[in-house]
Amino acid sequence: MAEEKKGVMLLDFWVSPFGQRARIALAEKGVEYEYSEQNLFEKSPLLLNSNPVHKKIPVLIHNGKTVCESLIIVEYIDEVWSDKAPLLPKDPYSRAQARFWADYIDKKIYECGTRLWKLKGEGQEVAKKDMIEIMTLLESELGDKTYFGGDVFGFVDVALVPFTSWFYSYEIVANLSIEKECPKLVAWGKRCMNRESVAKSLHDPAKVYEFILLLKKINGIE
Amino acid sequence: MAEEKKGVMLLDFWVSPFGQRARIALAEKGVEYEYSEQNLFEKSPLLLNSNPVHKKIPVLIHNGKTVCESLIIVEYIDEVWSDKAPLLPKDPYSRAQARFWADYIDKKIYECGTRLWKLKGEGQEVAKKDMIEIMTLLESELGDKTYFGGDVFGFVDVALVPFTSWFYSYEIVANLSIEKECPKLVAWGKRCMNRESVAKSLHDPAKVYEFILLLKKINGIE
Repeated sequence: MAEEKKGVMLLDFWVSPFGQRARIALAEKGVEYEYSEQNLFEKSPLLLNSNPVHKKIPVLIHNGKTVCESLIIVEYIDEVWSDKAPLLPKDPYSRAQARFWADYIDKKIYECGTRLWKLKGEGQEVAKKDMIEIMTLLESELGDKTYFGGDVFGFVDVALVPFTSWFYSYEIVANLSIEKECPKLVAWGKRCMNRESVAKSLHDPAKVYEFILLLKKINGIE
Repeated sequence: MAEEKKGVMLLDFWVSPFGQRARIALAEKGVEYEYSEQNLFEKSPLLLNSNPVHKKIPVLIHNGKTVCESLIIVEYIDEVWSDKAPLLPKDPYSRAQARFWADYIDKKIYECGTRLWKLKGEGQEVAKKDMIEIMTLLESELGDKTYFGGDVFGFVDVALVPFTSWFYSYEIVANLSIEKECPKLVAWGKRCMNRESVAKSLHDPAKVYEFILLLKKINGIE
């Protein structure tokens, strides 16, 4: 392998909750890497060649080999840099539970959030009801634990916490208070933000909202 | 834990490619289990209580603990019965690749197959084009290897092979020849069927087609 291909590079887009998962995992492990901001409106040959199947960020390039899909990237990071800050628990049942909730988050939140800002009227009301249901279920899974896995910050936290910087936008577009509906979940998000790995990977919720306004404009939604 | 809760039970539905993944994995590992056929048209309290989030089969119940979502079940089985027939490879990069393709299969085939039998005219033509694209991509990933992971039957094979018993139905409803489009993939499917674990978990393609006809009837599609 050519010398220039050694090391770790992340193809990402600043506001992406999926990319932020990879950033948080790398930060938890203390891995140094080159961050490569991608233009999603005009995709680079590097991105298209690195992820020809989905053509999406994030892509982790490690010693010239590419890994795609955010949860798969986080598991890969956990397995390669296994000496520090384990993200998945050791026993098979707890691992299956962590994977179940990360998968649930993956399938539900972004899709529901998109309906929240894209739709109006009844469609948005349904999305609002769905989002409260999703958040309430996650809050009940969290319960009174510090993190989803218990006392240790782990896989489900990494999967979910990037969405907390989108909460403000969800609240504004749908006239909703996530803190009122799910106070424990919001408190958990604040606890996570005390970690440097999380704080440096997320963005100001007001900036996320500006991005949503841009998306609405691009999609011709007033 | 009560004695009656010990052991392994699988809540499943005979024709489900997702349930069949769990059956194949359990058979590969030589795990004895109780198979519990579920009525999906009138869901049992056992199913609803075991998978309250998605309310879907398959559900693996192991010593009274439930594991849901087929790929998560297969990984769980691989981790608990790790002494025999490993399904995921050992090195992190190969594991990430296996997870990537299993995830691709999960996201694409069933959804596209449903469009194939539900839609007509242009919608079905789009689905047909999509299905050929999906199969062609999987065939190119398989290449000239015996199995997706190389010489050893593994995770991606388990994820994909149940759909081969649906190929016949896809071909009839959409006037398509998967063998003509993807001969290597069809040959791989036949190789997999030489394994007892696969042969005893899948059903006669003609029976699958009868089930699709029932689904069409239920959905009011002539």
